[in-house]
Amino acid sequence: MSDKKEIFRGRVFSVGIEEHRMPDGRLSHFEIVRHPGAAAVLPLLKDDRIILIRQYRPSIDGMILEIPAGRLEEGETPEQCARREIEEEIGCRVERLSPLGNFYTAVGFSDIYLHLFAAEVTEEGEQALEEDEFIEVLRLPLQEALALLERGEITDAKTVMALLLHTHHCGNG
Amino acid sequence: MSDKKEIFRGRVFSVGIEEHRMPDGRLSHFEIVRHPGAAAVLPLLKDDRIILIRQYRPSIDGMILEIPAGRLEEGETPEQCARREIEEEIGCRVERLSPLGNFYTAVGFSDIYLHLFAAEVTEEGEQALEEDEFIEVLRLPLQEALALLERGEITDAKTVMALLLHTHHCGNG
Repeated sequence: MSDKKEIFRGRVFSVGIEEHRMPDGRLSHFEIVRHPGAAAVLPLLKDDRIILIRQYRPSIDGMILEIPAGRLEEGETPEQCARREIEEEIGCRVERLSPLGNFYTAVGFSDIYLHLFAAEVTEEGEQALEEDEFIEVLRLPLQEALALLERGEITDAKTVMALLLHTHHCGNG
Repeated sequence: MSDKKEIFRGRVFSVGIEEHRMPDGRLSHFEIVRHPGAAAVLPLLKDDRIILIRQYRPSIDGMILEIPAGRLEEGETPEQCARREIEEEIGCRVERLSPLGNFYTAVGFSDIYLHLFAAEVTEEGEQALEEDEFIEVLRLPLQEALALLERGEITDAKTVMALLLHTHHCGNG
């Protein structure tokens, strides 16, 4: 990067106008949202059910069906973040965490990088939400979640990826 | 929304600090990136190969493997946008466009809504890139793309979703 003008530094992300040299040598200016990265986890119960959350999101001013997820805190590994979000958002304990892959979810304008996991969880603990969170917890069979996806009722990208990658890996679609 | 302070209005997105009332009545402030929405398309050739592009992205200051995609222009439908991006980025003509679903790709901080398609395409036409684009076109069998995904070499979320949704629908995973 040759030059960068920071427009905004927020609690969640920062925004800059950056000059970048492209592979053919040309210089151009781009608006970019810088984000610390995130982890998201598909929680698996022992009885073939999974857990989803229905969460209020101000970006769409409504509720949306998602898997637990959150921003990486300073000094936190993606695994630690995944375990913390499972504890805080659904009040469960992680028995085993398996990586599903790492992905750029909005590469057209942001460097946000998502670490995606599946986790075997047990229901021992209590939800501990942050001040600005509003979350309902749902337990449902994996096949029912896939049927919701099929009917277009799951519209959160990381949740779609987690359900399909887990199904694809397990060959149980 | 009760109150909004616009921080930045750019060419690609705008940023605001918005006050929203949550379902339980509490008011809170949130940083939000407003985006006009986007369309992305998995291009299918007649011989079971697909087309991917290797594109320079300033957000990660490097090349990444993706499906063709772009921002909705004013007054443009998602279908029109999908056809335009196929023509511009890979120089192909769309024979048939099938919806794969609509998704929020960064709901934690943005309203960006992605319209995802698969398209049967024919190679007649010429690439017509924008000033700030740098794109290489790759043709490869669908199974090879799925193998790249399996090996963690596809890291763009919309491309993962398109490959898995197409495979899931067609039952040919």
